[in-house]
Amino acid sequence: MARIAIDMDNVMADLTQHLLNVYEKEYSEVVDPESLNNIPEGSAFPEGVALKILSAPGFFRNIPVMAGSQEVVKALCEKHEVFVVSAAMEFPLSLAEKLAWLNEHFPFISWRNIVFCGSKTIVEADYMIDDHDKNLSSFKGTPLLFTAPHNLPLTEYKRVNNWEEVAEYFAVSNVETV
Amino acid sequence: MARIAIDMDNVMADLTQHLLNVYEKEYSEVVDPESLNNIPEGSAFPEGVALKILSAPGFFRNIPVMAGSQEVVKALCEKHEVFVVSAAMEFPLSLAEKLAWLNEHFPFISWRNIVFCGSKTIVEADYMIDDHDKNLSSFKGTPLLFTAPHNLPLTEYKRVNNWEEVAEYFAVSNVETV
Repeated sequence: MARIAIDMDNVMADLTQHLLNVYEKEYSEVVDPESLNNIPEGSAFPEGVALKILSAPGFFRNIPVMAGSQEVVKALCEKHEVFVVSAAMEFPLSLAEKLAWLNEHFPFISWRNIVFCGSKTIVEADYMIDDHDKNLSSFKGTPLLFTAPHNLPLTEYKRVNNWEEVAEYFAVSNVETV
Repeated sequence: MARIAIDMDNVMADLTQHLLNVYEKEYSEVVDPESLNNIPEGSAFPEGVALKILSAPGFFRNIPVMAGSQEVVKALCEKHEVFVVSAAMEFPLSLAEKLAWLNEHFPFISWRNIVFCGSKTIVEADYMIDDHDKNLSSFKGTPLLFTAPHNLPLTEYKRVNNWEEVAEYFAVSNVETV
């Protein structure tokens, strides 16, 4: 049994898609998803807009679930010790929203296995699935880079492009996702 | 420089005193502080009452600061890497309240150095200052038991009875607290 630390935003929760949806709805403008590739998160939007959208009440509560994440995380929980580790402190409103979101979409994850932090340097686990270099670079276990538009240039990590690949990596069943 | 993980309730925040105060105010009954000694937390109160008080909105926002904690934590922050690590997930309302409490009373602690979790087994640090056996027993670094009424029977840890003793242990100045 291994301990696996799993990030929320852009890994369990499709933050990028939600940001595009909210922007389109509130600003009546469409951002081409391709324009997000290879540049820092949020920088495809007018200055300050992504931060403003992320800081608004309800944003984190309403993010769609990443395709395949529920089934594969559930399968991982049956074989391994899974911790959800989210850098939530930067957005204080997100704390309660993220907890409610997890309770709704991942009810099989105990509150004992949820961590909201700022820096993830304090987390000790065997594996970390995350979309950010800043979280993976100081991790002492095995880092797995979950593909997101902003991290396409990174080449120094084992990459997982979706939850099917996570299931394959850990050799757990994901029959429900295919 | 060492990494020190510091608990909030009964270490930085005087939860026991606040529980006694709120109980006296809401139930018009006084509980003798001595009656809390050597028994599990909350069990000196009528069944379910301590849990009810802790679950009410505002409880964690209004806890008094533990004597000496601000000065000594500030001194520790100057020499060491300090993380506040609080088992907040059991009380969802406490998340935002604990963050606001820290911002008010410990504004020198960055959001990067705050961790709200369930189980503390995932925390990696050199020292952990905590009042609970369940948090210290699986810790791989050096555990320091901060004295609280419920933990008086424990003999297996290095004990610190107050923040002056923490300052002495880490050889940091605590001139402002004496």
